[in-house]
Amino acid sequence: METLAQQINIEKTKHSKIDQVDFDDLSFGSIFSDHMLVCDYKNGNWETPKIMPYGPISLDPSAKIFHYGQSIFEGMKAYKDADEQVWLFRPHDNHRRFNISAERMAMPEIPQAYFMEGLETLIGLEKAWIPSTDGSALYIRPFMFASGKGFHASPADAYKFLICLAPSGAYFSGKVKVLIEEKYSRSADGGTGFAKAGGNYAGQFYPTQLAAKKGYHQVIWTDDHKHEFIEEAGAMNIFVRLGDTLVTAPTSDRILDGITRKSILQISERENIKTEVRKITVGEVVEAAQDGSLKEMFGAGTAAVISPIATFGYRGKDYDLPELENSYASRLKKRIVDIQYNRAEDPFGWRYGI
Amino acid sequence: METLAQQINIEKTKHSKIDQVDFDDLSFGSIFSDHMLVCDYKNGNWETPKIMPYGPISLDPSAKIFHYGQSIFEGMKAYKDADEQVWLFRPHDNHRRFNISAERMAMPEIPQAYFMEGLETLIGLEKAWIPSTDGSALYIRPFMFASGKGFHASPADAYKFLICLAPSGAYFSGKVKVLIEEKYSRSADGGTGFAKAGGNYAGQFYPTQLAAKKGYHQVIWTDDHKHEFIEEAGAMNIFVRLGDTLVTAPTSDRILDGITRKSILQISERENIKTEVRKITVGEVVEAAQDGSLKEMFGAGTAAVISPIATFGYRGKDYDLPELENSYASRLKKRIVDIQYNRAEDPFGWRYGI
Repeated sequence: METLAQQINIEKTKHSKIDQVDFDDLSFGSIFSDHMLVCDYKNGNWETPKIMPYGPISLDPSAKIFHYGQSIFEGMKAYKDADEQVWLFRPHDNHRRFNISAERMAMPEIPQAYFMEGLETLIGLEKAWIPSTDGSALYIRPFMFASGKGFHASPADAYKFLICLAPSGAYFSGKVKVLIEEKYSRSADGGTGFAKAGGNYAGQFYPTQLAAKKGYHQVIWTDDHKHEFIEEAGAMNIFVRLGDTLVTAPTSDRILDGITRKSILQISERENIKTEVRKITVGEVVEAAQDGSLKEMFGAGTAAVISPIATFGYRGKDYDLPELENSYASRLKKRIVDIQYNRAEDPFGWRYGI
Repeated sequence: METLAQQINIEKTKHSKIDQVDFDDLSFGSIFSDHMLVCDYKNGNWETPKIMPYGPISLDPSAKIFHYGQSIFEGMKAYKDADEQVWLFRPHDNHRRFNISAERMAMPEIPQAYFMEGLETLIGLEKAWIPSTDGSALYIRPFMFASGKGFHASPADAYKFLICLAPSGAYFSGKVKVLIEEKYSRSADGGTGFAKAGGNYAGQFYPTQLAAKKGYHQVIWTDDHKHEFIEEAGAMNIFVRLGDTLVTAPTSDRILDGITRKSILQISERENIKTEVRKITVGEVVEAAQDGSLKEMFGAGTAAVISPIATFGYRGKDYDLPELENSYASRLKKRIVDIQYNRAEDPFGWRYGI
């Protein structure tokens, strides 16, 4: 029997753009590879995916994506090792989370074969687009949105699933200064915060702009009730090191189940770094900053892997974090990145060869 | 000096679809008129709007609308009176709210002339598309979304503003049965609930589907903290009549400042219907249903005007509302609709002739 991958029709581009790309000077997610995967959902079924030249999508102006925000995505990366072998990192977890997001947004789940075989076929074709420069990778963006028509505020009857690829450099660079937010919120109890849904991100832009005007790069999100608990850092999960213990907030319907987050917890366990998964109060972080027990804070996510925080602001005052020689952040980032680029053993079975 | 309207370039369709439309059998928002208005925002400026045949929009797959949900909309209607004169209802309020939504979603505001002159020019051209059947109207959908490219989770650098028109019949018909929701939530304190942002709607679909499986048409949203207060009904504001007093929840960052909602409050004041704008607890509504003082519940919004609720469900029990001869719902709906269709005096100055 034919596998799904064998059925995928591939239309190759006549004009590759690869020669125009400076792979030594990549920004994040702004250059796209030659091809993309497109798969349509109609009449209750996913059609066979197609791979075609990267190019515009045509949609009716009443497509529900424009009006009611039915959209979800994932962020992944493909890494090339010294032998030009290509690796993914825990891709089945992205597929699982994609379908969790889909359910919450009343969108159809995508079968594993469509996600995984589509991904592997596309990346196999675009292998030359994976950067070899240290710190760079091929950013992978699987996404789905409502293409069905009509102004009725109800789920669409048609969807598009795409995978696009963007050779990318580091997401953040330099020292990150964050603001603990006390007015705006990212998500509600019983809301969509745990899903990678488009609307969760748009809602963060304005508060982040306000913070930027005060000189901060990102917002630390707190609960919407009393702004008492630290929950996420921008679009990343957050870790706080108190003494020698690494603490992160538990996942919930407000907090994303980050793949980097859980990898950090697993690596820490193996390395005998003490971790706690519990609610973190703003009060204890401020107090720890004052008494010197706050050693580190960092964001964790696919795009930036680990993004150390240099300063946090709270109620008009800035608190600087110490600069440590052997920080957990740098140690854990090295462990993860070494697994991702096949530079170290992978005792967890996270690496996935293509 | 030329007005903006005089600068709008109009490309007329060669093939009108109007003869294919049965204006006596219209559903809601599923048929679109011949033309649409399109206006692009680039390099920090709105370009001159264009009117062109209704047709597909072409977007880069990395357009931020697909990934980060930057989208807002308005819902309005154009009404035709017995003399074929065309009217809008409080259109400047829609424009104002559109810009309030835009600010919260970190999108550019649209100048009043672009909104109003664009609207008037388009509707003037599409006058034949305004239904004359009672209860029908030309539904107007102004909307804006992020067309700028890139996977960086930050506001786009380009946007599209469009106005599309859909001759429409009633949004709901028949008796509406609603479920008071205690698990899922529509919005957070400090969130985007007051904005007409796409993501607010997508998040409602799944809980509404779950309610539908239990036989309910819509969900009554409560606060996300303790599900103690009644806030909205589906995508509408909610009114509860306790004895002879009409009560609605105050607007907040969780609750939309509905134009129908505030019109109902103003008409009620003039008609000596006692109103209260205050928090409504689920407990008092259930108690009032039990002791007979709960006379009416209805949703209020542009699409349905006033949508009376026949039954509400709470914790596994259904509560039927009485069927009143002279309900506030039917009386207030008649007052509003009579103003909209120019069948009665408009002491408020709400009607806006085109």
